[in-house]
Amino acid sequence: MRLAVDAMGGDNAPAAVVEGSVKAAKAYKVEIVLVGRKDDIQHELNKYSYPNDLISIHHASEIILMDESPVAAIKQKKDSSINVAINLLKTKQVDAVISSGNTGAYMTSALLNIGRIHGIERPAIATLIPTHNSKTMFLDMGANVDCKPKHLYQFSLMGNVFAKEVLGIAHPKIALLNIGEEEEKGNELTFATYKLLKASKEINFIGNIEGKDVLTGRADIIICDGFVGNMLLKFGEGLGLYLGNILKKEIKNSIFAKIGAIFLYPSLQRIRKFIDYDEYGGALLLGINGICIKAHGRANEKAFQNAIKVAIDSVDHKIIDIIKKSY
Amino acid sequence: MRLAVDAMGGDNAPAAVVEGSVKAAKAYKVEIVLVGRKDDIQHELNKYSYPNDLISIHHASEIILMDESPVAAIKQKKDSSINVAINLLKTKQVDAVISSGNTGAYMTSALLNIGRIHGIERPAIATLIPTHNSKTMFLDMGANVDCKPKHLYQFSLMGNVFAKEVLGIAHPKIALLNIGEEEEKGNELTFATYKLLKASKEINFIGNIEGKDVLTGRADIIICDGFVGNMLLKFGEGLGLYLGNILKKEIKNSIFAKIGAIFLYPSLQRIRKFIDYDEYGGALLLGINGICIKAHGRANEKAFQNAIKVAIDSVDHKIIDIIKKSY
Repeated sequence: MRLAVDAMGGDNAPAAVVEGSVKAAKAYKVEIVLVGRKDDIQHELNKYSYPNDLISIHHASEIILMDESPVAAIKQKKDSSINVAINLLKTKQVDAVISSGNTGAYMTSALLNIGRIHGIERPAIATLIPTHNSKTMFLDMGANVDCKPKHLYQFSLMGNVFAKEVLGIAHPKIALLNIGEEEEKGNELTFATYKLLKASKEINFIGNIEGKDVLTGRADIIICDGFVGNMLLKFGEGLGLYLGNILKKEIKNSIFAKIGAIFLYPSLQRIRKFIDYDEYGGALLLGINGICIKAHGRANEKAFQNAIKVAIDSVDHKIIDIIKKSY
Repeated sequence: MRLAVDAMGGDNAPAAVVEGSVKAAKAYKVEIVLVGRKDDIQHELNKYSYPNDLISIHHASEIILMDESPVAAIKQKKDSSINVAINLLKTKQVDAVISSGNTGAYMTSALLNIGRIHGIERPAIATLIPTHNSKTMFLDMGANVDCKPKHLYQFSLMGNVFAKEVLGIAHPKIALLNIGEEEEKGNELTFATYKLLKASKEINFIGNIEGKDVLTGRADIIICDGFVGNMLLKFGEGLGLYLGNILKKEIKNSIFAKIGAIFLYPSLQRIRKFIDYDEYGGALLLGINGICIKAHGRANEKAFQNAIKVAIDSVDHKIIDIIKKSY
């Protein structure tokens, strides 16, 4: 297996990307092609002892920044690391791409160069979030900020296939994220989407799910537009940090809290690990005709290694073929 | 001061509403008119010793349920508790209304019977959320699930007036909730709204704010459409419960965690109180030509008492007059 890694994408590139790639190559024995500025990547690589036969560099001279307009950036920067990585996948030199760079640019490059699976109008970013008893697949996380009902319906079909075939859930429970459980609730988009999902015989639609129930594990798959999905995930991160900061302040100000924190430390660490976004660093550009994994923009080396693991699992499970066959 | 309370609205009505009203009448020495089914209310009232001169019942025979379609319900149920309460405000028999019932029905009744402040096309639900150092005003929380850029702009103007005049912030920092900080990021709505807010000389617009920064206190006022606002608040509640449940499980399974939790208990209680939605039970239907306070649908008696306090403060500060004058 051979994977292309966009070494220049994300807030912590290239350092975290290179470190994560070195660890992944060692841990999973896969070939990794680091795409980006050769000197910068080599400089980072020199910090580690790494398997020469598994890690190579593919030079790309340009970088797309996080705040660049995706379409313009992809069109102007043909030699950007993400574009070059995507083209390695297009020409079948690699089996998958991993990037934590500008999501819009990633999706744009994947759409322009690799294209969609036949019948899918809008690929979505899908991720697994930890819930009370299990994990829930959540899409779209931010690829499509303006959606039509049929797009959300297609997300549900793709999610259904992925959950059935890869996660092994016989009849995945699919819910529509909404501001109320009742059929009448919601905005124009969710109101119309509800009808489509309800009418479908392809999926096991269990109705609307409210924000408060996202983490209960009541649904195997939760469908929403990319604006709302992205907002929720980022708000969740922020709330986690916020609670952590309040707790730190309490511990600083009270000797009892300090003692309590010492005893509770292993538990707090487990909780932190459980909800740590970095532990779930990988997401899937679902609907693209090739395996494209998106790591978080602030992914550290651990998150990046996990994203590479998701790529490996996706290749192993032949996800693209399964979606094509089932769609 | 005389306040109308919708005694039949919300998941915990009439019990929690009546209990909260009795406590508020005692604590704040205000007259409270409990609106709804006389026998049911009296049955609850009989559980308490209460000031007869401050608490009275105004009978209304019908109840609008949480899952009813707002417009149809308000048109069909003329004698519903929320409609009757709103009409007491319309006819100036009371100074404000408080309800934790069906938000859509509340807003519909307020719009039909009392109407908007001149120049405001869409009233919004505004609330104050606790942030790192202070509080941030957040609107719309769910009154308008489909918005146009001009509506969000009007929310910013109303919020600006409220924060200046009532909260005493000289130049309130106003931010637009978005999925990225950059001007180019967002969906059609936020992209167009950004331009409007940026061009305005009325407000101190500080740009986009991401979900992860909502609780940092970076903005005094955060503007979004009601779908996103409602989603975020409910997700936040759910995430809080979720983390609490994980912590409980840890404490149950480990003797060290148990000891830690005992020492940390006062801190955890303070944190819980700090982030408790019930502590911030009141919100404002901002833009309605009268003071209408919305309590949370699951408001308990404490939350309801707090919502009544928000109503009292709003009357004291002559909020409607100030918005009218400043707009």
